[in-house]
Amino acid sequence: MATSVVPAVREQEGNILERCRGFMSPPVTDINVLQARKDEMRTRMEMLIMETQAEFCKALEEVDGGKFKVDRWQRKEGGGGISCVMQDGKAFEKAGVNVSVVFGNLTEEAARQMRSRGKVLKGKDGKLPFVAMGVSSVIHPKNPHIPTVHFNYRYFEVEEEDGSKQWWFGGGTDLTPIYINEEDALHFHKTLKDACDKHHSQYYPDFKKWCDRYFYVRHRGETRGIGEVFSFVKSCARTVVPCYLPIVYEHLNDSFTQEEKDWQQVRRGRYVEFNLVYDRGVKFGLATPGSRIESILMSLPLTARWEYMHEPAKGTREAEMLEVLRNPKEWV
Amino acid sequence: MATSVVPAVREQEGNILERCRGFMSPPVTDINVLQARKDEMRTRMEMLIMETQAEFCKALEEVDGGKFKVDRWQRKEGGGGISCVMQDGKAFEKAGVNVSVVFGNLTEEAARQMRSRGKVLKGKDGKLPFVAMGVSSVIHPKNPHIPTVHFNYRYFEVEEEDGSKQWWFGGGTDLTPIYINEEDALHFHKTLKDACDKHHSQYYPDFKKWCDRYFYVRHRGETRGIGEVFSFVKSCARTVVPCYLPIVYEHLNDSFTQEEKDWQQVRRGRYVEFNLVYDRGVKFGLATPGSRIESILMSLPLTARWEYMHEPAKGTREAEMLEVLRNPKEWV
Repeated sequence: MATSVVPAVREQEGNILERCRGFMSPPVTDINVLQARKDEMRTRMEMLIMETQAEFCKALEEVDGGKFKVDRWQRKEGGGGISCVMQDGKAFEKAGVNVSVVFGNLTEEAARQMRSRGKVLKGKDGKLPFVAMGVSSVIHPKNPHIPTVHFNYRYFEVEEEDGSKQWWFGGGTDLTPIYINEEDALHFHKTLKDACDKHHSQYYPDFKKWCDRYFYVRHRGETRGIGEVFSFVKSCARTVVPCYLPIVYEHLNDSFTQEEKDWQQVRRGRYVEFNLVYDRGVKFGLATPGSRIESILMSLPLTARWEYMHEPAKGTREAEMLEVLRNPKEWV
Repeated sequence: MATSVVPAVREQEGNILERCRGFMSPPVTDINVLQARKDEMRTRMEMLIMETQAEFCKALEEVDGGKFKVDRWQRKEGGGGISCVMQDGKAFEKAGVNVSVVFGNLTEEAARQMRSRGKVLKGKDGKLPFVAMGVSSVIHPKNPHIPTVHFNYRYFEVEEEDGSKQWWFGGGTDLTPIYINEEDALHFHKTLKDACDKHHSQYYPDFKKWCDRYFYVRHRGETRGIGEVFSFVKSCARTVVPCYLPIVYEHLNDSFTQEEKDWQQVRRGRYVEFNLVYDRGVKFGLATPGSRIESILMSLPLTARWEYMHEPAKGTREAEMLEVLRNPKEWV
């Protein structure tokens, strides 16, 4: 079982205060608290998600020339978040990068659900303190030749009666192209594979298979919290900028036609459907008391379109894209 | 318990073949079968939903000048449907009117769910034959001064071991205005109230209360199949044209600004959210094997918009609309 003891071999993560200076906003948790428990996993994870948010936002601001609107919000039941949104920019129609850190006691219902999944949890006086945190982002670019990207890295911790802690890490990055581009797909998967291979040669093939089932080109790890996993999540979170930004720069000035823009709108409609009907994060968010709807739904595109019986003509690039979506392909 | 015996006092419904001539397409069930069992409730209901579809489509074609595209589809597990869709018309951006009639044997899971809701069902050799049918429609007009309308009337029948049948009827009509218009709301509720009052003076106030909880100005009846209920559902289905068309004609040539069009797009975003996250019909449809996705999702608007933290300025008509949505009002 995992505990809050930090693995002996871990890389230097530096001074808390200094690292906070680069963030989009002070972290959700008070800096004094973070400093006091700087070796705990929850602190290391909060620092990692704040850092991921800052790195990604800054890289996007540099491409776009615009600035993110930064909103801090508090959850009355415990915790809060930082939402960064850029709307109607030069390169991005809507870009959102969210951090949230929420804590409290697990509801009876949630604890029962975890038990039914085979996790035995013993609370103190019936109470199970938990922390859930994560960084998530969805980027909808203007140019239909730049794919939409989504990523999310999260951490969940429950404290049991004897003070011991159970952890879970999860997350992933997925790319949703409007048109298929072999080079982009290769670059994207290669970057993720390299990050995986650093930890275990079976990670990439296993996760890739899992993701094809869950969603197109979604790379996701769901693992119990064991020492090695934090560095894995960290490696993956760090790939967000190198995965996506080269693709953005590559296509930033590509010209596009009205037909291409229309196809982008139809694809965005599908994106909305997936997000509202299936996405687990959205479902969990909408069902959690005190959650901030505007932050959960910032993932929806600024505009979308639903055409009845839309089916691209045979032999078009739109049809080629659909083909890949219907039959996932091995990229690397 | 309800049986398939027709109540003695029922109005004349006329000759099947003659009535079919006015439909958008031949009914789902073979006409010979309908004629052979013309007194059964399922036949009377299929005729009613086909008639409602035809009346409504024709009234909309008359306003718009365009024609509905009519698609017949078959469900390999049993039954099928007729989807009528008009897209990019003069008055309507997207208008859909669906009929579906599906039958087969209840899955174990569905039967269990019905049992857990207190309905005891005894099948023959473990099989419970069912029929589910309905007419549903969503209209998205171009002009933001014409509200969106949605209605749905449905029927569900299960046959038990001894050949006796249980029925359920349900349905309702709801209006989603982009801007509040007292006169339109009054007209709408008055027409529905009159239809309800014909049957029972407590129907309208009870259903109105129920609807305010489920959705804004949704008028819905969910009742077990007893003789009187069919005429009630029939009365309600017949109010669709008189409820909505006068409002369409009233605002058909209203001028509108870009701001008003933008607000319509934002409201449509909310519509998509409701449909994909909460709507029971959509949920049921997406979870039913063999259902036709394009028919279920025809309710989505052609275009929609999600602005982060959109909040109309105080004192505007957009703010006035939101106020009514947040605090349902008694109209009649």
